[in-house]
Amino acid sequence: MARNRVNQTSDGPEPVDAPPATPEAHRPPIDPPRLSWFDPREFGWEGYLLPAIPIAIAASWFGASPVVRFLAAGVAIIPLAGVMGRATEQLAHRLGPGIGGLLNATFGNAAELILALFALSRGLDDVVKASLTGSVIGNLLLVLGASLFAGGLKFPIQKFNRTAAGAGSTLMVLATVGLIVPALFHNLVPEGRGLEHRVSVAVCVLLVFTYILSLIFSLVTHRDLISGMKEEVAAIISEATWGLRHATLFLLVATIFVAWMSEILVGAVESTGDELGLNPVFMGVFLVAIVGNAAEHSTAVVMARKNQMDLAVGIALGSALQVALFVAPVLVFASYLRETPMDLLFSTLEVISVILAVIVARMVAEDGESNWLEGAMLLMVYAILGVAFFYLPGKAEQGGEPQPAAQAPAR
Amino acid sequence: MARNRVNQTSDGPEPVDAPPATPEAHRPPIDPPRLSWFDPREFGWEGYLLPAIPIAIAASWFGASPVVRFLAAGVAIIPLAGVMGRATEQLAHRLGPGIGGLLNATFGNAAELILALFALSRGLDDVVKASLTGSVIGNLLLVLGASLFAGGLKFPIQKFNRTAAGAGSTLMVLATVGLIVPALFHNLVPEGRGLEHRVSVAVCVLLVFTYILSLIFSLVTHRDLISGMKEEVAAIISEATWGLRHATLFLLVATIFVAWMSEILVGAVESTGDELGLNPVFMGVFLVAIVGNAAEHSTAVVMARKNQMDLAVGIALGSALQVALFVAPVLVFASYLRETPMDLLFSTLEVISVILAVIVARMVAEDGESNWLEGAMLLMVYAILGVAFFYLPGKAEQGGEPQPAAQAPAR
Amino acid sequence: MARNRVNQTSDGPEPVDAPPATPEAHRPPIDPPRLSWFDPREFGWEGYLLPAIPIAIAASWFGASPVVRFLAAGVAIIPLAGVMGRATEQLAHRLGPGIGGLLNATFGNAAELILALFALSRGLDDVVKASLTGSVIGNLLLVLGASLFAGGLKFPIQKFNRTAAGAGSTLMVLATVGLIVPALFHNLVPEGRGLEHRVSVAVCVLLVFTYILSLIFSLVTHRDLISGMKEEVAAIISEATWGLRHATLFLLVATIFVAWMSEILVGAVESTGDELGLNPVFMGVFLVAIVGNAAEHSTAVVMARKNQMDLAVGIALGSALQVALFVAPVLVFASYLRETPMDLLFSTLEVISVILAVIVARMVAEDGESNWLEGAMLLMVYAILGVAFFYLPGKAEQGGEPQPAAQAPAR
Repeated sequence: MARNRVNQTSDGPEPVDAPPATPEAHRPPIDPPRLSWFDPREFGWEGYLLPAIPIAIAASWFGASPVVRFLAAGVAIIPLAGVMGRATEQLAHRLGPGIGGLLNATFGNAAELILALFALSRGLDDVVKASLTGSVIGNLLLVLGASLFAGGLKFPIQKFNRTAAGAGSTLMVLATVGLIVPALFHNLVPEGRGLEHRVSVAVCVLLVFTYILSLIFSLVTHRDLISGMKEEVAAIISEATWGLRHATLFLLVATIFVAWMSEILVGAVESTGDELGLNPVFMGVFLVAIVGNAAEHSTAVVMARKNQMDLAVGIALGSALQVALFVAPVLVFASYLRETPMDLLFSTLEVISVILAVIVARMVAEDGESNWLEGAMLLMVYAILGVAFFYLPGKAEQGGEPQPAAQAPAR
Repeated sequence: MARNRVNQTSDGPEPVDAPPATPEAHRPPIDPPRLSWFDPREFGWEGYLLPAIPIAIAASWFGASPVVRFLAAGVAIIPLAGVMGRATEQLAHRLGPGIGGLLNATFGNAAELILALFALSRGLDDVVKASLTGSVIGNLLLVLGASLFAGGLKFPIQKFNRTAAGAGSTLMVLATVGLIVPALFHNLVPEGRGLEHRVSVAVCVLLVFTYILSLIFSLVTHRDLISGMKEEVAAIISEATWGLRHATLFLLVATIFVAWMSEILVGAVESTGDELGLNPVFMGVFLVAIVGNAAEHSTAVVMARKNQMDLAVGIALGSALQVALFVAPVLVFASYLRETPMDLLFSTLEVISVILAVIVARMVAEDGESNWLEGAMLLMVYAILGVAFFYLPGKAEQGGEPQPAAQAPAR
Repeated sequence: MARNRVNQTSDGPEPVDAPPATPEAHRPPIDPPRLSWFDPREFGWEGYLLPAIPIAIAASWFGASPVVRFLAAGVAIIPLAGVMGRATEQLAHRLGPGIGGLLNATFGNAAELILALFALSRGLDDVVKASLTGSVIGNLLLVLGASLFAGGLKFPIQKFNRTAAGAGSTLMVLATVGLIVPALFHNLVPEGRGLEHRVSVAVCVLLVFTYILSLIFSLVTHRDLISGMKEEVAAIISEATWGLRHATLFLLVATIFVAWMSEILVGAVESTGDELGLNPVFMGVFLVAIVGNAAEHSTAVVMARKNQMDLAVGIALGSALQVALFVAPVLVFASYLRETPMDLLFSTLEVISVILAVIVARMVAEDGESNWLEGAMLLMVYAILGVAFFYLPGKAEQGGEPQPAAQAPAR
């Protein structure tokens, strides 16, 4: 930012809608020459993970052990997802609040969507649903928790806009209702087996419709409430502002590589689980989801350390919402291109994890204040859920039809 | 209201406790003559539904198809319930806050109670419980949602008293605890079958006791908190103020007709379900309950469009509370006049719907602010629950003893 | 207090950290001589229960009926737990906020812990878990409810610090997540039987870790937030301030007697249940837990009657938290000294009771205001849960492996 402010004095043709001058355009000649189209510094710390891309490709070509392929591809996706997110934001910024907001809302979690689509095409429905679950609880507990904790270690009490956090978490509750109804229906109506697909599709239509309403709310009718915040994000996030062509190209290239890495990762997920003794649901909820959300994670923590809690909370809640209201329905709709479609039937442990995450996150967020203990509490709930998922028996996934489960001793 | 303000100049004997002059008493002689005891204009838009009464009676006499009888009787109950509600309020207004409040609290949902009593006497316990569930979730999601949505389309942000809304929704949570404990007990204690009736009765006694405490709170110890609001309602609702005799007669006549229509509707509910392919629980939760609550619905939406959010929220929460704390226990007690009493054992889908409705409504209400998106969210949750109830298999109601239900795949 | 203020004029060696002069040290010579080491007046009303100690001992020696032994020992524990609590506070006060806070945090619920340890050593795991459940719901519903009700009868509206209450109740939610995960795991993962112990231990480690973090928060990083309150408690509670030796001796003696009484009570609990026709879970949740919490109960109510709502709410929430985050894990760890360890597998009714108690208590506490109706609501929820536990079939405890439970009619 300081660098940019120095550049303000330059008299180049400055775009009106991008107050922080773009370094490419206005850099004074004294500056050292830079790799104009590709500068690792633009990636922040994530840039150091880029070498994982060739490693993953090589591992895949030479048939390395699945663990190596899984890890390399997973690590490679982290900076690529970051680039996709940043390129989307840059494009959104330049296309103005209307189309830009729409773009951001649609491609914001594109890396996760691509990853899930590859898993879907391989029939790994359990992993797809687990990564959706993991993305929601990861954003609400891990990303939000780490942000509040990291920020709370620096500032005794941090404040944020409770109205915005409240609206986000109420929408999250609605999404949760949608996500649990198919599982509820399946469990409570044994005679209704086979109708879950119809229930899932009807719910997905309602979720997407709600997503559209929430976009109308934030982009049209109540734009003023949100826009101040959007500006701030743009100002803080984009230390290097990219041009329109630059951003489009980066988005395209990163998308292609994310798809490639996702294919490698998804191809190795089952064998990796077998080799490490981890069940595929644990891998989906904790490993795959963390890979997909690493970019949000690092941005939210950086914002919290700068005491920009509105942004940190907004990133975590917004990403969880987008997964529940947009990515999940899109995956269900996409599954109708397969022979057998996917339903939204999450396992009871997943359902309850999402409910608990939403409740705890809302409780922490609703007073508009945070401290490090609240962050630690979110992380602790994440760890407790991790324990439960870790001890799930690995073979359970094969069992097609669940057995009648016994209740706890009623005493 | 404007009409009334003109009449204020008249010097007739104005009752002190009814500031907006009653049109009957003070109308200047120039006015066109009016049908003094029965004026359809007093019914608002609901007046246009009154012709459904003779249609329902004719359909019942000439043995028309059950769908026709069900629809005609259902449509006829809507204006009658409105008249009963208005007559009760007028009487309450004239009898003063003490006895009047008690009257309002007892007869406020009388139409619903009469309808449920007829279903109870026919042994349609499923429909009775479904209409109780439907009344609670209908008030919390449909009535409140439509009010916030309709009001929010006119005003960007609407405010209401969060203390009152909070107290109401906390009472609602207590009522929910009462409503779910018998079902819990039934599910968790297989050895305890047969004890549900004792648990139900004990819970009903506690619910009625809580209702009495809440009346003492609002009518005696904390009257000031609520009374300002009550006055406002009276001033806004009663465009035409009725005399004591007028109101009593209207209450009596409307009650008789509601009973008649209820008998026709309840007699046709099962055959209608069969003919339309709708299961009786869906009909109870969505159709019967909407009929019983139509009056509250229309009043709450009108209040919201006038930005009187305290009233709109108060009507929705108050009606849901009255059903859970008063109507439900009265029905259980009344069922002891039959050979086999009714328990409070709701199905798990009903229990979870009520829990979700209470949680979502509270979340939306607790910040004391609303916008159209919050209203849309409540309506969307109502729609999602509607999908689940719609796909319930119709024959499930016959199955006396439920089979052991399988849990979701635990994975 | 008034008495102390008179004594302030005396010129004895007054300890700097104990502003209210200790009556022993500064009583003017004119005063009547007092039993310097043991004065029943120091016990308040609980002093009148002290004769239960010899009765319990005699009943135990002469082999009286189990009901007599149970009642006498239970009544005897009430004043002893009060003495332990007061002695701990006095020591904490003298040892300064750091070590003192730690002492208070560790021994605050020592009487309950001792009682549970005796039940644990007898293999009465059901009673141990029931008393943990009972302690949590007793503090959140009975103690908090009675305080708000008793205080609300005197003051129309009472206010308290909503930030502190919010933090406490959020921690309580985290603790609840921990307490329910083993039961969830057991119910949802039939193939995972036998892993519950590992899950329980992992969860216990996380709970204790959270407890340590919460101590660091309240004793180190955010001491200022809490310390003002601590001072107030000390000033109000300790009408008679004890010396260091005095307090240590009292703590030791009371602990020994609590252990003795606990042994008698635990030895009689099963036969008492059989004789009174009460199931052991009801006895654990309602009778044993009330005995262990009687001291907190009486202090919280006294504070509420003095309009010191921060203290009343703090005592109830703090005690519930200590049980969930510290006593429960310590009991699980202690059970590893037995041949077969105890797990944290609560019955579903217990799990749901704790969830409901936490939700209702948080709803009542979150607005920072209370009135008698809110207190009555908490008591009513306690009563409704009491009904459910009361009707549990007594023999259910023997049934080792639970049968597959049927769901509610799905309709």
